[in-house]
Amino acid sequence: MVEYVFKTMRQIVDFVTKAMELIKREQVERMIEILVETYKSNGRSKILVMGAGRSGLVGRAFAMRLHHLGYNVYVLGDTIVPRIGERDVVIAISGSGSTKLIVTAAEAAKKVGAKVIAITSYPDSPLGRLADVVVEIPGRTKTKREEEDYFARQILGIHEPLAPLGTLFEDTAMIFLDGVAVELMHRLGKTEEDLRAMHANIEL
Amino acid sequence: MVEYVFKTMRQIVDFVTKAMELIKREQVERMIEILVETYKSNGRSKILVMGAGRSGLVGRAFAMRLHHLGYNVYVLGDTIVPRIGERDVVIAISGSGSTKLIVTAAEAAKKVGAKVIAITSYPDSPLGRLADVVVEIPGRTKTKREEEDYFARQILGIHEPLAPLGTLFEDTAMIFLDGVAVELMHRLGKTEEDLRAMHANIEL
Amino acid sequence: MVEYVFKTMRQIVDFVTKAMELIKREQVERMIEILVETYKSNGRSKILVMGAGRSGLVGRAFAMRLHHLGYNVYVLGDTIVPRIGERDVVIAISGSGSTKLIVTAAEAAKKVGAKVIAITSYPDSPLGRLADVVVEIPGRTKTKREEEDYFARQILGIHEPLAPLGTLFEDTAMIFLDGVAVELMHRLGKTEEDLRAMHANIEL
Amino acid sequence: MVEYVFKTMRQIVDFVTKAMELIKREQVERMIEILVETYKSNGRSKILVMGAGRSGLVGRAFAMRLHHLGYNVYVLGDTIVPRIGERDVVIAISGSGSTKLIVTAAEAAKKVGAKVIAITSYPDSPLGRLADVVVEIPGRTKTKREEEDYFARQILGIHEPLAPLGTLFEDTAMIFLDGVAVELMHRLGKTEEDLRAMHANIEL
Repeated sequence: MVEYVFKTMRQIVDFVTKAMELIKREQVERMIEILVETYKSNGRSKILVMGAGRSGLVGRAFAMRLHHLGYNVYVLGDTIVPRIGERDVVIAISGSGSTKLIVTAAEAAKKVGAKVIAITSYPDSPLGRLADVVVEIPGRTKTKREEEDYFARQILGIHEPLAPLGTLFEDTAMIFLDGVAVELMHRLGKTEEDLRAMHANIEL
Repeated sequence: MVEYVFKTMRQIVDFVTKAMELIKREQVERMIEILVETYKSNGRSKILVMGAGRSGLVGRAFAMRLHHLGYNVYVLGDTIVPRIGERDVVIAISGSGSTKLIVTAAEAAKKVGAKVIAITSYPDSPLGRLADVVVEIPGRTKTKREEEDYFARQILGIHEPLAPLGTLFEDTAMIFLDGVAVELMHRLGKTEEDLRAMHANIEL
Repeated sequence: MVEYVFKTMRQIVDFVTKAMELIKREQVERMIEILVETYKSNGRSKILVMGAGRSGLVGRAFAMRLHHLGYNVYVLGDTIVPRIGERDVVIAISGSGSTKLIVTAAEAAKKVGAKVIAITSYPDSPLGRLADVVVEIPGRTKTKREEEDYFARQILGIHEPLAPLGTLFEDTAMIFLDGVAVELMHRLGKTEEDLRAMHANIEL
Repeated sequence: MVEYVFKTMRQIVDFVTKAMELIKREQVERMIEILVETYKSNGRSKILVMGAGRSGLVGRAFAMRLHHLGYNVYVLGDTIVPRIGERDVVIAISGSGSTKLIVTAAEAAKKVGAKVIAITSYPDSPLGRLADVVVEIPGRTKTKREEEDYFARQILGIHEPLAPLGTLFEDTAMIFLDGVAVELMHRLGKTEEDLRAMHANIEL
């Protein structure tokens, strides 16, 4: 009875646990430093978060936390998207690093001088190559079939992954970015009360 | 260096692991049965997913998987939202179970005879009480301060939770619903290839 | 051949033309004054725009222009929605003035002390009654069948309206709000170049 | 007092009125024929609507009406976006016809064999050239400064246009597509009651 629900949850949790060892601390540190610096601009630097499909949702969840932390943050696809310039930071999330519209948008951001942080499994992808900072997050990806099981097999061992398509990347990225939010709380001296005070009080 | 990123990830993973024991199998089974039955209606029954803020994003991620599985599924807040009737199923996600607009929308769904599945930490909340099926997912919640640490302390022991606001609920719900998607794959006889064949090929 | 396309366009244009006479100048002036004052707060006052369905889209189109004018503006339903307080302004758009979730959200805004501007055909509706400023925009409405043809008949004369449901309200509100944007350009001393300079350069 | 509100509304209405003469009936007829044929596929053919910024909102407003008419319709940027194939129809809205992400998405649609209908002021733009059917809708555009006043001057005569950026295109496209919806009502034998019966009953 409902055994696959819990087998899958187990596998996702194991995957995230092993991913934690593989994520490169110096990549994370560079990302955090850029975000701390952006905060210190007092709203003059904006952050634009972008991702397609479920990666886009993971990006939105992180964008909400950045807003709660006091950032001037926007999401590609929302109604209000500001003009981006050289003071600004783009965070692009794509497991494969080759989602066409995200690569196109990230290229446009580079062209106007914005810094691009890529969250991807593939540093050597089009997105990874154009980014100023890459944070490698393990995951299977849905587009590169040959390579896709490389990480999954390395991490899960002999097990066939249960979670389909980009699930492992997306869930790992979600939890990783929730970790980044807590790191930022500490670096910026923010308490949970500070975040609560920024939380929407009229919600849909 | 970036220690809070990984401490937090560790705590989220521990929380989800312990939550797996607390989630009630019979509640999950009832949810799965309704979803299997809905699938068998051959598109005559629709699913409408709703949630506010980050819970809404978790709902959207699940809605995408339901679409990949072949469901006739919609999200409250999307452009296209159909009329809901008595054949239809609403999945409402709210940690506190008392987000006002979600309760209002779920009440409207009940009134027209739709079945409501609530994903919440509080079965005794307004949302929990009106739902046909409640699946209790542990979490702290951002609105009920007295109660909010009950689950967190029960699960994390002496540790002060690092992850702020609804993070623990949202991440647990995300991974739980990814588990539900895999359970449905098995019950409906779907392979990863079937899901891939339904995946958007023009993405933003 | 395609005669209904152009008959309908004709009728919409005639409706908007006659609506221009019926819109009350002093209501519009009060709305403009609040928006000018909001601008002068230098970003400390925020605007939150809300509407359901097609009225919500009209609101989003106006919100984009407010952003181009330099306002600190948000849309209910976007990822990033800030906490609203007593310095802030809510613009709620609803032909009938009784869309339940919009009324609920506008009530929440009133409770925290925000000013509510209602764009509606019915000043005596729940939304109209709670608003600080009502701007009456003629239209048929989809919910109040008895009343719904009052405006339409008054305006179109003997003609049966072609445009279904809320179309006449929505199109009139769209064009009215585009007029408000130009009024604000003049009052705030903004040129088209100023707006262009705020326009998104990375678009989806 | 508020004179620019009404001067602008007047100019928009005049623009739409003259645009009605310039819109080519045979282009509209081809669009309508494709949409009628799509309807007759009984849901096997899908429609995907796409546009950036305010043009995207105009597209969403039309997509809602297509849904009310009984179409299987989706919007690029919504949570649920299906796989597109050769039976399907893409409606792409772009005044300039050169919005990069829309052109990229329309190219992807062509590649999988979908029919592309372009709503644009520029048939000779990248979008116009790749489309199966172009419907030319007059407008100024925000990107091509040399050309942008061609239509506006042709239509408004000596007047400097008041409405900034893409306003004239967007409002004309909105009213045109509302006309298309009524044409489809007649061709498909739908009454306003039929549309009402498809309207969302749980709205945000």
